[in-house]
Formats: sequence, structure tokens, C-alpha cells
Amino acid sequence: MSGSRLWQRLMRLAEIGARADGGVDRQALTAGEIEAWHLLLHWAGEAGLEPSTDAAGNLFLTLAGSDRSLPPALIGSHIDTQPTGGMFDGAFGVLAALEVAATLAEIGIVPARDITVVAWMNEEGSRFAPGMMGSEAFVGFRSLEAIRAVRDAAGVSVGEALDALHAAFPAMPRRGLGFTPAFYIEPHIEQGPLLEQAGIPLGIVTGIQGKITWEIVIEGEEGHAGTLDMGKRRDAVMAFARIASRMQRDVGETDPIVKFTIGRVTVEPNAPSVVAGRVTFRIDLRHPDNAALQSHGAALEAAAMAEAPPCAVTVTRLVDAPSNAFDAGLRERLAKAASRLGLLAMPILSAAGHDARHLAPRCPSAMIFIPCRGGVSHAPEEWAEPAHVDAGAALLAAMVKELTT
Amino acid sequence: MSGSRLWQRLMRLAEIGARADGGVDRQALTAGEIEAWHLLLHWAGEAGLEPSTDAAGNLFLTLAGSDRSLPPALIGSHIDTQPTGGMFDGAFGVLAALEVAATLAEIGIVPARDITVVAWMNEEGSRFAPGMMGSEAFVGFRSLEAIRAVRDAAGVSVGEALDALHAAFPAMPRRGLGFTPAFYIEPHIEQGPLLEQAGIPLGIVTGIQGKITWEIVIEGEEGHAGTLDMGKRRDAVMAFARIASRMQRDVGETDPIVKFTIGRVTVEPNAPSVVAGRVTFRIDLRHPDNAALQSHGAALEAAAMAEAPPCAVTVTRLVDAPSNAFDAGLRERLAKAASRLGLLAMPILSAAGHDARHLAPRCPSAMIFIPCRGGVSHAPEEWAEPAHVDAGAALLAAMVKELTT
Repeated sequence: MSGSRLWQRLMRLAEIGARADGGVDRQALTAGEIEAWHLLLHWAGEAGLEPSTDAAGNLFLTLAGSDRSLPPALIGSHIDTQPTGGMFDGAFGVLAALEVAATLAEIGIVPARDITVVAWMNEEGSRFAPGMMGSEAFVGFRSLEAIRAVRDAAGVSVGEALDALHAAFPAMPRRGLGFTPAFYIEPHIEQGPLLEQAGIPLGIVTGIQGKITWEIVIEGEEGHAGTLDMGKRRDAVMAFARIASRMQRDVGETDPIVKFTIGRVTVEPNAPSVVAGRVTFRIDLRHPDNAALQSHGAALEAAAMAEAPPCAVTVTRLVDAPSNAFDAGLRERLAKAASRLGLLAMPILSAAGHDARHLAPRCPSAMIFIPCRGGVSHAPEEWAEPAHVDAGAALLAAMVKELTT
Repeated sequence: MSGSRLWQRLMRLAEIGARADGGVDRQALTAGEIEAWHLLLHWAGEAGLEPSTDAAGNLFLTLAGSDRSLPPALIGSHIDTQPTGGMFDGAFGVLAALEVAATLAEIGIVPARDITVVAWMNEEGSRFAPGMMGSEAFVGFRSLEAIRAVRDAAGVSVGEALDALHAAFPAMPRRGLGFTPAFYIEPHIEQGPLLEQAGIPLGIVTGIQGKITWEIVIEGEEGHAGTLDMGKRRDAVMAFARIASRMQRDVGETDPIVKFTIGRVTVEPNAPSVVAGRVTFRIDLRHPDNAALQSHGAALEAAAMAEAPPCAVTVTRLVDAPSNAFDAGLRERLAKAASRLGLLAMPILSAAGHDARHLAPRCPSAMIFIPCRGGVSHAPEEWAEPAHVDAGAALLAAMVKELTT
């Protein structure tokens, strides 16, 4: 294992989609992600890993095992980012997994089964919503047809973007969609402050907190800003302001654990002197307790219905994912492996969603967290210490060796 | 005068930029507006009118008078629309003026002074804000340099768009920016319900209500929707919801006459699972009483400062235009002319802004209003009755003949 090589590759990958503010904008299925694939393929080729893809645009880099008929070990994460993302979210997991597979190859170890590094398609969901599409299609939670029909703000469909991705790699072998791995382990930055506050370099993730997302459409009526009487207006922006304020009061400020976010708002026609006819917005609600998640969800829906009039409102749940628990046996092995390495590790709940949520029902699955500065992610300031990056990769390497040799 | 020709031309012009919903999207300096210029030039050419333009992209179509050294009579309006505009706002004034000049030419009347039909550049301000740029530049309220520097949402500057417009008409004579007209009369739909409610086909506009517009920028901090504690957030969308609700309570609901609108809202990065780092929005405030306008304006600014924390906020006034009164002599002549035509007319305040506001300090200026259905404008449903279109054009014709022959 070369800690400094992994760090250098993190920095090199972050140059693709680099923003002037130090962040990274490399959204799913963009030219930037295609460029990142080329870079990963170059590094994988140096180590003799076999590339392949599937119909959902997931990228696989495989170190061949001695018995290729066995289910492969699957390790990795994603390389797409938010539009104002950072250098570590996703990239750390993929490059740590690549480092493990490449190092085993370089020192001549032939594992008992294939070790496959994966970079899942569209984890972030910022360009095409909702996210985690690649792992959803892989395990069959959602049909590829439905996923291909989703369009970005410019009207481009996932299907068109996927076809463009595949066209950029015409010689790459295509594997069938979905196979059963022996296990799945995903390293990731914590995206929260707990490890940093505890001064502990590794988190063994117990589960992922539940999440519900909605699209809400407020239908008002357009009119002239200078002439339409206030009393006759059905102003969609004003209805949005009432609804969002009520949701913050009824949910956001009532529970110290809940996470309630309105991150996307679209106003139509969005002209300064036209009373808005329509506002479309997204809600992201998370809570580790499934009963609390559902009760806060009901309160949000009630707030939308209560505050929308005189506008009309439609409320659509996009994602409704309860909390899950990762494989107990795998978590225990990870804790023991960390102990043998002399690295402190603690159990931790994931507040953010990850592709591992989708893999968990399919095969024993687990996640390794490392601290990130101030708990910040999805922002240019996102940062992980080189020592923590090394610790996370070392634990993954130890676990993979134990389970494949 | 051919009433049916004017109506047919209104319908024909509305085909340029026609929307599927029956509305018109023909924003300033777009390909649609260039196509509309070609159509106007074709009709002007048939009547022998002389086309010209100026550095601000205003279009002039002139019926030559017997003494060309006299200040010309200026009549017209604009042909740009809101993105979800209608068939009459602006277009009625330009085509009624064209009908008057063309009819005089066709029946062989040579007026004592030039009669110039004008279509002002960018009245609406939806693509390039704020609006009324062409008349502002014409009278020198704002430098052409400052106007040329304004950019649309796609980053195109007014200067670049103006150069493209002029390049499309290389042979058109260019006149100097700004001349003093003998008078200016602008026909327009009312954009309010008063004429329709009174059952009166003509309004003689007394003045234009005052208007202040702002750009407000809320600076928060981006973060992960699933991990960032609610208590640690500086969420720009939530600050926007608080500010907009407070403004509505403190201004929008306190005065039956005030018009308060937030029509444009931009969220960054506008991703579903990222706490918003910035919200930029526009406020449009109008009131016929200048003291009330200023006091409501101060209340809006106070609301922004009070509700923004923990976000930061910057408040910038873009337009600060007090109410004005149109020329009393011209208004009296219009009332008498209507009476001679046997058409009912009433004095009316304009709730919307118009280019005539800028001409009023330069020369005797007036406006003629006709009813529009339900008072609706800036919307696909915008509609004026053919009989009212004819009445407005007839009053303009009578007035222009009286003042130029």
C-alpha cells in the first residue's frame, strides 16, 4: 500500500471538474465524469485490473481471483460530485478500493475470488434526481427504463447521457446488470462531526438514517406586478414562503436530531415584474428513528396543504427509505481488524445516504468512515487528513485480504 | 383607418414568439424581436415610411412632414414581451401608431411635421433588467455604456445583443441618440380592471404610480442535507422564506393600494441535498403616493435586515422612480377629442410603468389606455376587444391629425 500514492491520486482526480473556489463540480454522466473514467482506467491498466461496465453506467475494475466462478468481493463508492462538491466525497472510497486492489496485484497476491472495484453511476442526484441510480438499477430496486427516462434541467435524459458515456468507451466489455457479490464494503468520509470530535480516525457504520424526499408543486396564477391587487393574487412565491416557514417551525425547529432541507427551488416564469405562477421545490427529510421520520413527514405534508391556499399544491414522495442496519458479522470483523492494526474505531450511524444502502439486502455490506474537517461535505471546504485517508484504506485492505485469501 | 387591418396585424405579429398556451414569448433583442422588426419594416415600407434606428436599438418609422426641421410627433410603445407575455402589451401601441401614420400616408396627407412611430428597446426588463432601457438611453437618464454592460441569465450583454440586432439591419440609417419630440403619445392596454369594470373604452392616463425595485442577496453557508445539524445551519432558503413572509405581513397585507411582488428567485447551488448557500431575489414595489412608497420601501429593507440572521444580506435599490403626472394640456385635448368622436373616456392612473414616464420630462407626453379582459396582462390570457383596439387607434389618429395638420 502506498499512502502517498493514494493521496496524490485523490489530488489528481480532484483536478477534473476543479472549481475556482477549491471545490469540485463533476456531476454524473458529464464530460468531467468521462474524463475521470479515463484516468481511473489508466491507473487500473497499470495494475492489470480488468475494466467493465453495465447498462446502468457503473464502472467495474477487477483483480482476477484464482476461482473466477466465486462471487466477487465488491469495494468502492462513486466519483460524481455535487455542483459545489469537494475532493473526498465518493472519490476517497473509489480510490481507496483501487489502491487495495492495485497493491495486491503489484505484490503478486492472487486472491481466492475476484476483487472488483466499483464506481456507481449518479450517487449524488444533483443533475438527475434522485441519486444512487447506479446501485438502484444494479440491485433492481428501480427499472433501468424508469431511470433512463429521468431528465436534467436542460432536458437531457439519463438514457441519452448513458449512451454518450458508453459511446466514449466502445471497447469496454459490458457485463449483465446485477450480480451477487460475496460482500460489499464502502469507505467514505463521515460528512458529520462525530469522529473528529471524538478524535477517532475510523468509524464502523452501524446503519444509514432513514430518508424521505418530496417534490412539491405550488400552482398559482401569473399576473402583472404593478397592477394586480394584492387581495386577488394567487402568488406561488408567497405560498412557498409560507409553506417553508411553517415546515421549519413544525419540523425543523422541534427536534434536535431531525434534518430538514429545502435545497432546490424553481420559480416560473421567474421574471422580476410578474407574479409567479408556479414554484416547484424539493424537500429532503432524514431521521434515524423510523417512527419519527414518518411523523415528521406527515407534518411536512400537512404544512404544505395548510399554507398553500389560495394556490393549489401537489405533494409527491420521490424516495421513502427507512433506516437500515449493516451486517453485524462484517461490522465485528472490521472492528477486530482495526484493533489488530492498532487503529481506534467506533460504531457510528450514517446521517447521509450511500449506495451501500441498496447493496445491504443483496449481500453482507458494511461501510468504513473517516473524519472530515468540521463535518463539512458537499462544499468546497470539504477536507480529510492524509493520515485518516491512509487509515481508512489500511482497514479496507486488511478486511479484503482476510476475506479473499 | 382600417380597423380590421390593425387587428389582423396584431394577430400576425403575435405569431412571432407564439407559445403553445396562446401567449407570446418575444423578449428584448432576441431572434424573435429581429423577426418582428422585419415584419414592421415590411408594413412601413408599403406605406412609404422611412425606417431608422439609434445606438440604443430603438426603431423609428417616419412619415415625412412638410417642414422636416420641426420637432417630430412621436407615437408608439414597444414590441418586446415577458417570457409568458400576451398579444397586446406593447404591440397594440406600436401597431396603432403604425396604423395612424400609414393611413395618413395612404390618403395623401402630408403633415406639418414628421410623424415618427417608435418601438422602444427592452421595455419589459425580463431578459435584461431593469426594463425601459431604450427610452432611458434616449432621454439620457442612464448612459448607453451602463446599459450595454447589463447581462442576461446566459451571460450575454445588452451590448452584444444590440450589435447583433444592428448587424441584422446593415442598411438601416442610424440617427443620433435622443432628439426632442414635439410631443409623445403612447397607447397601451390598461393592465388593470378599472376601464372594464366601468364599461368605458378609453382611459386618459393621469400619471404612472411610483416604483422601487431591489436586488437582495442572502449569503448563507452550504452543507450536507443529511448531516449538518439544524442548529448549526445558515440556510439561505430558510432565510428567504422568513424575509418574504415578513415582507408580506409588514407591507403586502397592510395597505389595499400597495403592490408588492417577489417575482424572481435564484437559489445556489439549487441541489436537492445541499443546504443552500445563496439566494438572490428581486422585489418590485409600487404605490401612487410617493410618501407611502418610500415608507413601505423602508419597511421592506428593515424586514430583510431583521430576518436574515444567521445569514448575511445585501440590499440594493435598482430603480427608484417616484409617481409622475402627464401633461395637463395634452390630457385635456385627448378628452375633448374622445368626446368629439363620441367615445367615452375617463381619467385613470397607470399602475404599471411605461416608457412614457421617461419621455414626460422631455416633451408634453400622454398615454391612452384601452380595457383588457379581467385586467390580466403579462400572461397568455391577456386579451383586448377589437372594438377597444379600434377606439384607442381612432383617438390617437384624431389627436395626431389635430396636432400635425
